[in-house]
Amino acid sequence: MRIAVDAMGGDFAPEEIIKGTLMSAETSPDVQLILVGRKERIEPFLAGSLPKNVSIFEASEVIEMDEHPANAVRKKKDSSIVVATRLVKQGEADAVVSAGSTGAQMAAALLGLGRIKGIERPAIVTILPTSEGGKLILDVGANMDATPAQLCQYALMGSIYATKILGISNPRVGLLNVGSEEGKGNELTQKAYPLLKEAPINFIGNVEGRDVPYGRADVVVCDGFAGNILLKTAEGLAGVLFDQIKEKITSNMVRKLGALAIKPGLKEIARMMDYAEYGGAPLLGVNGISIICHGSSKSKAILNAIRVARECVQVRLIDQIRQDLLK
Amino acid sequence: MRIAVDAMGGDFAPEEIIKGTLMSAETSPDVQLILVGRKERIEPFLAGSLPKNVSIFEASEVIEMDEHPANAVRKKKDSSIVVATRLVKQGEADAVVSAGSTGAQMAAALLGLGRIKGIERPAIVTILPTSEGGKLILDVGANMDATPAQLCQYALMGSIYATKILGISNPRVGLLNVGSEEGKGNELTQKAYPLLKEAPINFIGNVEGRDVPYGRADVVVCDGFAGNILLKTAEGLAGVLFDQIKEKITSNMVRKLGALAIKPGLKEIARMMDYAEYGGAPLLGVNGISIICHGSSKSKAILNAIRVARECVQVRLIDQIRQDLLK
Repeated sequence: MRIAVDAMGGDFAPEEIIKGTLMSAETSPDVQLILVGRKERIEPFLAGSLPKNVSIFEASEVIEMDEHPANAVRKKKDSSIVVATRLVKQGEADAVVSAGSTGAQMAAALLGLGRIKGIERPAIVTILPTSEGGKLILDVGANMDATPAQLCQYALMGSIYATKILGISNPRVGLLNVGSEEGKGNELTQKAYPLLKEAPINFIGNVEGRDVPYGRADVVVCDGFAGNILLKTAEGLAGVLFDQIKEKITSNMVRKLGALAIKPGLKEIARMMDYAEYGGAPLLGVNGISIICHGSSKSKAILNAIRVARECVQVRLIDQIRQDLLK
Repeated sequence: MRIAVDAMGGDFAPEEIIKGTLMSAETSPDVQLILVGRKERIEPFLAGSLPKNVSIFEASEVIEMDEHPANAVRKKKDSSIVVATRLVKQGEADAVVSAGSTGAQMAAALLGLGRIKGIERPAIVTILPTSEGGKLILDVGANMDATPAQLCQYALMGSIYATKILGISNPRVGLLNVGSEEGKGNELTQKAYPLLKEAPINFIGNVEGRDVPYGRADVVVCDGFAGNILLKTAEGLAGVLFDQIKEKITSNMVRKLGALAIKPGLKEIARMMDYAEYGGAPLLGVNGISIICHGSSKSKAILNAIRVARECVQVRLIDQIRQDLLK
């Protein structure tokens, strides 16, 4: 198996991307890893010679976070994400992993790999850490104004992913909505509900924002706008609360001593909430495996993302989705 | 000034509603409070005689949480929320406060009081506790599919409320969106952005979900669907995190001792996050003051909601909105 890694994408690229790739090379000697990017910027971070199962594939350009995704992908044909995606298209790699601009990665995948037949729009998946383990949210930003039929396609793809990759059998699919009863919601969710009831999935009805962090659904389906609001609100609130806790439990000497004692407990929570444990998730619906990582991924996240890529290839995720759509 | 309180609405009605009303009667002797509901269910919670500034107004029916709001309001003409709203309409009260079914309260207000001229749809306001104090979010559920023009009306009303009631001068208005640049978002936010730029408000552009808990805007404008998702996700995540903290910091003896030392710090945070501090907020856009409280309001929240009602009357909120719309 060969996995192309976009060495130039992400807030901590190329150093942390390379570190994660080298860690993966050691733990998975059977996987061939291809670092895609500018050789001269990659080489300084390689301690001496390359491991046998790591190679460098030159790509002279880099797409920056502030560039217009689709334009940049069309213009910079030798950028790391475009080249890495091309390797998948040409069968020279089985998957691509990137922590760079999500928009550019999506544009590169749509232009380079195309969509799976029967899928109108791809969806960006996120694994949200919850008190019941990681749960799938999709879409979190690929497609702002989805149609009811597209939400059904997300539900189908999300179910397959939850089953095959997260190992959840018969995953509970919930429709993100403002109330639990059928008939609640905006035009989109009101129309999507009856379609989801008929779909070959384990549809449990509507889930509200407050249900999601409690892990009451394994797969949460929503349009990219609502998904993005949910995800980023959760991120922001967790950040604020941890900041506040840090401040309030160290504001005097007694509290500081107490903080020392409970620190391991807080670390356990921080670890539970750490997206890096999940590494990344594929852009579902495109005709190939393209794993999207958080922009601020460090080596551990990249290591885990490569593991996810590997699992997607092993279970033949694309074929599974294709087969399910034919049913 | 006279304020009608829906004694029958809320998870802890009538006991906690009555308690809060009596507390308010003591601290605000100049306000006449009218408990609206079934006398026989109210009287057992009155310790002896009524304070001079509290009276009971009989309403024989109650709208339950699971009833269809508009139907229930049309059918139960002698329900506490309908009667209390009618008192405002007839000039016998200056405001109504309720912790009952939000849908029923909205239907009662729309049917009983009507809309302010120039406002197409009312908006439910919430004060979200943030690390920078309470910030306004609207709409959080009155109107699921808003138009760009309606978002502008929310922005205007929210600005007036933030200025007059929260005491924020020149409040920063943000459009809830998925990215900071103009042009980001779904059809609604893309079209609302240029309108907001032209509106007579202090528009600071898009704010993302993660910006909201940090208090980066004083007024966050969104459709009722997105606002509800944001609010309930924040509620759910805070709940999960506090549950986890409670569990993890008491899982052994050392941590339990530490927990004792930091407990005051955690209480400070819980207090910061407590919606009861804000009591409630008006349904903005209807032609009269109707204060919506959280369903699980206890006496403190009711006390604070009555204070909010009083302030809305004192600053002549409805007139202020009417005047601003004429500009």
